[in-house]
Amino acid sequence: MHSIKDVANLAGVGVGTVSRVINNIGSVKPVTRNKVIEAIRELNYVPNQVARNFKMQRSYLVSLLLPSIFNQFFSELAYHIEDELDRNGYQLLLCNSGGKPEKELYYLDMLKQNKVAGIIGITYNDIEEYIHTDIPIVSIDRHFSKQITCVTSDNFEGGRIALKELVKAGANNVAFIGGATSINSETRNRKKGFIHEAEAMGIPYVVYEEPDPIADDIAFIKRFLKKYPEVNGVFAITDMLAAKYIEIAKRSGLRVPEDVKVIGYDGIQDHEYFHPVLSTIRQPVEQMARKAVQLLLKKIEGESVEHEDFIIAVEYWQGETT
Amino acid sequence: MHSIKDVANLAGVGVGTVSRVINNIGSVKPVTRNKVIEAIRELNYVPNQVARNFKMQRSYLVSLLLPSIFNQFFSELAYHIEDELDRNGYQLLLCNSGGKPEKELYYLDMLKQNKVAGIIGITYNDIEEYIHTDIPIVSIDRHFSKQITCVTSDNFEGGRIALKELVKAGANNVAFIGGATSINSETRNRKKGFIHEAEAMGIPYVVYEEPDPIADDIAFIKRFLKKYPEVNGVFAITDMLAAKYIEIAKRSGLRVPEDVKVIGYDGIQDHEYFHPVLSTIRQPVEQMARKAVQLLLKKIEGESVEHEDFIIAVEYWQGETT
Repeated sequence: MHSIKDVANLAGVGVGTVSRVINNIGSVKPVTRNKVIEAIRELNYVPNQVARNFKMQRSYLVSLLLPSIFNQFFSELAYHIEDELDRNGYQLLLCNSGGKPEKELYYLDMLKQNKVAGIIGITYNDIEEYIHTDIPIVSIDRHFSKQITCVTSDNFEGGRIALKELVKAGANNVAFIGGATSINSETRNRKKGFIHEAEAMGIPYVVYEEPDPIADDIAFIKRFLKKYPEVNGVFAITDMLAAKYIEIAKRSGLRVPEDVKVIGYDGIQDHEYFHPVLSTIRQPVEQMARKAVQLLLKKIEGESVEHEDFIIAVEYWQGETT
Repeated sequence: MHSIKDVANLAGVGVGTVSRVINNIGSVKPVTRNKVIEAIRELNYVPNQVARNFKMQRSYLVSLLLPSIFNQFFSELAYHIEDELDRNGYQLLLCNSGGKPEKELYYLDMLKQNKVAGIIGITYNDIEEYIHTDIPIVSIDRHFSKQITCVTSDNFEGGRIALKELVKAGANNVAFIGGATSINSETRNRKKGFIHEAEAMGIPYVVYEEPDPIADDIAFIKRFLKKYPEVNGVFAITDMLAAKYIEIAKRSGLRVPEDVKVIGYDGIQDHEYFHPVLSTIRQPVEQMARKAVQLLLKKIEGESVEHEDFIIAVEYWQGETT
């Protein structure tokens, strides 16, 4: 017996579109509607009215909880998450938590009341005690000990690549700079990979950190420059921190990349119209977004998810700063 | 008799928080909860159970329809819209239309089915025939002849300021470059204000346009540079187009701002870590976002909205390109 997915595949449209045609809701272009109707006829597809009615009472909302959509990495992530949800007939409820735990907990509560079908969350707060494994949640960049499914980029490998690329560009005295989170955030692996590779290669390194979020990053960078004038290779935990470091280093007379090579993390620049174009470890944002949605939908459908962590490969983007 | 707004004001919290406390849904910090309870006692506030129940059956979802959240102007707008909605107990459904009319129409249809309470829309498509004035919609940057409430920045004045600032910086042969929309988009007023002021001041100007969206903006800029080598002041319809123009002009040997002054529109750079820092007409994004939400909520509540267009003042940001 054929499923709605088979109809969607044959018609070359998303499941959401087939659903709109069957339920006669929403707007579907006549040409698309005809394709769907033809596919239904060809497969002799009979929508299960009971199942469908039951489903129609479910929520098709998925909430995306993130610190702020006004951040290029998060907005790119949200773009692809919404697209993947839409292809599957779901809609996206956006919640800027502003990093506030009470706002995050409010959304978890909505989940418990079945007002949303699931949550994709990016949180740096310690809300762990409120999270139960029996509700559909997928986390991005954050591990929970209770085995919430987590999708991340390969931060450890990213740190290793950064060290190797700094050395390849000529640095022999390197530093990691960034905010240190107290919780088990995946971003900590950037530092770990960096240190691991520096020790393996016998390169002298320093780690310069402050608790995250860094209250005054300009002052933080100035203190770093004063304390470690001999450093000639810097790996910053994010592209924004790398850009700030470069600006302040330049004002203090350092040339980038001549005097100091710099690598960031994220890959927020998708063009070369603003300078410096950063050398960076590019997060596989689209893949992370689609994977997170696919895993969440499996959980919502009650399917088992094989692994609890999905780590997606990063790549190095050569810019003007190494 | 006191309203829920009075309670919220006295407690120093949003209406949404008071609602969460009264209905015992969501999570509210104990200290906040106590403030709300104290305010309820002090005002002797009695929630109208019937009205409240009726309201609870309403949708508290507002959908934001925009071409793509992966665009800094739109993501900043979305950030403030979500924040203003949250303060009023509403939630944001995000829809990247990708500029596709069928996706926009799908959301309009959800509105008709009362699944969303209202829509804030940014669309450059001609979906006018589907829009009825009796449903709560607020448009940003786009006029509809059917008198949909529209919130915009003062694009005409922005164009006038751009011309004056180019001239002040020394330009005497100026150009407007950008995409031309066929619909009644507010962005067209940038050009109109620019022309108006150039004619008033007697400055020679050219308008170089292609239908929006410009398919190949690099080629577009190259053709412009070839055709008008004498231009020494450029006003680009967006910051991104300004940045692209600058990069290509530099590659062809022009210095910015020495040989040509450039002004963009939007104000997407909120820091000075990437260069050039553009001289630009800054959109009042936060004010536009909050105003759009406030107007929409008035419409949802059935209140009359005094004006149909709300034009918010822009400001000039001096960067490195004039």
